[in-house]
Amino acid sequence: MSESTAFGPICPLPINDYPQVMMAHGGGGKLMHDLIEKVFVPAFHNPLMDVRHDGAVFGVGNERLAFTTDSYVVKPLFFPGGDIGSLAVTGTVNDLAMCGARPLYLSAGFILEEGMETEKLWRIVQSMSAAADAAGVRLVTGDTKVVDRGKGDEIFINTAGVGVISHGLSICPNSVRPGDAIILSGDIGRHGIAIMAAREGLEFETTIESDCAPLSLPVLDIISSGVEVHCLRDLTRGGLASALVEIAEASGYEINIEEKQIAVREDVQGACEILGFDPMYLANEGRFVAFVPEHQAEMTIDAINSFASDTTATRIGTVSERRSADVTLRSVIGASRIVDMFSGEQLPRIC
Amino acid sequence: MSESTAFGPICPLPINDYPQVMMAHGGGGKLMHDLIEKVFVPAFHNPLMDVRHDGAVFGVGNERLAFTTDSYVVKPLFFPGGDIGSLAVTGTVNDLAMCGARPLYLSAGFILEEGMETEKLWRIVQSMSAAADAAGVRLVTGDTKVVDRGKGDEIFINTAGVGVISHGLSICPNSVRPGDAIILSGDIGRHGIAIMAAREGLEFETTIESDCAPLSLPVLDIISSGVEVHCLRDLTRGGLASALVEIAEASGYEINIEEKQIAVREDVQGACEILGFDPMYLANEGRFVAFVPEHQAEMTIDAINSFASDTTATRIGTVSERRSADVTLRSVIGASRIVDMFSGEQLPRIC
Repeated sequence: MSESTAFGPICPLPINDYPQVMMAHGGGGKLMHDLIEKVFVPAFHNPLMDVRHDGAVFGVGNERLAFTTDSYVVKPLFFPGGDIGSLAVTGTVNDLAMCGARPLYLSAGFILEEGMETEKLWRIVQSMSAAADAAGVRLVTGDTKVVDRGKGDEIFINTAGVGVISHGLSICPNSVRPGDAIILSGDIGRHGIAIMAAREGLEFETTIESDCAPLSLPVLDIISSGVEVHCLRDLTRGGLASALVEIAEASGYEINIEEKQIAVREDVQGACEILGFDPMYLANEGRFVAFVPEHQAEMTIDAINSFASDTTATRIGTVSERRSADVTLRSVIGASRIVDMFSGEQLPRIC
Repeated sequence: MSESTAFGPICPLPINDYPQVMMAHGGGGKLMHDLIEKVFVPAFHNPLMDVRHDGAVFGVGNERLAFTTDSYVVKPLFFPGGDIGSLAVTGTVNDLAMCGARPLYLSAGFILEEGMETEKLWRIVQSMSAAADAAGVRLVTGDTKVVDRGKGDEIFINTAGVGVISHGLSICPNSVRPGDAIILSGDIGRHGIAIMAAREGLEFETTIESDCAPLSLPVLDIISSGVEVHCLRDLTRGGLASALVEIAEASGYEINIEEKQIAVREDVQGACEILGFDPMYLANEGRFVAFVPEHQAEMTIDAINSFASDTTATRIGTVSERRSADVTLRSVIGASRIVDMFSGEQLPRIC
């Protein structure tokens, strides 16, 4: 970036292609990836920048800490299985868990739209409090801003979280090794369908609830049970497919998965067929993948299942020795295809 | 709160008075105080909750850390002396400094409105990077969300910060003692007037620039020079008046200040008279008050002035032995009046 303007280097984003921010820039797919890699990384470049991870890990004195943030703009605010408040707490707790950290403290920043019902805010705050208790974290600092009517959408919430890492593992895509077993913590797609159904007022035979749940307990149990965890990733925006593609790209290794091992509930599958969604790209808020040594796959599955009430962890694949950085999926009929990152925006404002 | 609903305790906010969120709920005055005390505190109640401070302080292992957050919704995005990017970094760095912490790491959460010019985002990100370098902090983790056109206002930024406290002082309103000298770090009102002028396209003889500046260096210098700092507070939303009222209420002691010691630049004073603003309530982004032992007042002033180029620290008052929890101001003509918290919203979206 040798050229520069009064504002520093010329923006390397293909301005001609994208002179304006599009919904897909927040969709968890290719365009968001571009925005991060071409705008944020060059500006904030430093060794800790967690571009390819769910949080930053650093040492303070003798302690190893994890630090992460997420803003929540989910629409609608209330949905089966949760609301923006429980999501704002659980989502950030889960990002800390994916660093192998024990979540300790959260901050909460509220951006309220003038005219929002105070009662609704109250319900959301109650929900955040309950979610924090469930996850064993404390909300210790906050901020409230109000924007003019028509300049917001009732409420946006940002939470940041601090956690402590009390083990020596380096849990990140770079630690992924050939032969690693890939464990999926449960069935996929519930959160995405729950939001979509609530937003569009769709009725299915059964009400599909979000899988929104804190992941810190199962993750810390896997680690304390002695599993040498190489990488963890929760399956939020972009779903299972995008998470695996990111890890394959970052690690450089090819990832091979088996479609028949990926659990999708019948009602979720049915809803996907009606709505034309691929569950592989649907957001989840209580699911993750774990990359662990082959011989510790069963231990990992057992640890996860000891916490899961309504789903089961399965081994969905293996890390290959090939350095293609591709994700290949073998379908139920045996055909093999390459899994790509979603380029556009399958479901906006999912979290 | 014995009564309860399906969503937990009945909202103690006077719903009949405020069924909806109003701009003033984010204004830094009485209504925001109400919202925090009646909604957030009861829900998130815990010993660390920093209701009356700029950040939370807690121990992890042998380390003492400070943690804080702020969302930035300033309008316009660019103004004389800064922009939403520099403000988002400096404001959070300053909240850490007010805890007596050395700022280490920041997170950044972006909420973008569909259709925002990518070039503008790029300029803001460049400005954040420069501000982080100036304050000696690193942006290490982030998040980007995009909301539909008309559901945001181009860009909102949340930053959270983690800092380390390497001294034994307990810097908070509870540490304030009778006889403490109250030091103001410089002239007040520039940020508020700079924003207002830019927003309304007002032209004054001179362009009034925001005082936006990182406060961590002067604060850490005061502490390392041996001053036994009792309390620090930066003068953002609500200005000098609200900061002093909050500290008086929290400490229980009466605070006496001298109007003639409070520096207001002539051009700022002139703008205030035209616009009908009271500089005591105008937001600043590079000013703070320090409560220190009487005999260390001069040391404190010298430390601050060694960093200030275009302003001078002054002693504006003293903490009284009276337990009235009032703030009294002696005007230039010698009349004395009680300073109250601003009840409404003098300047919305100032930060």
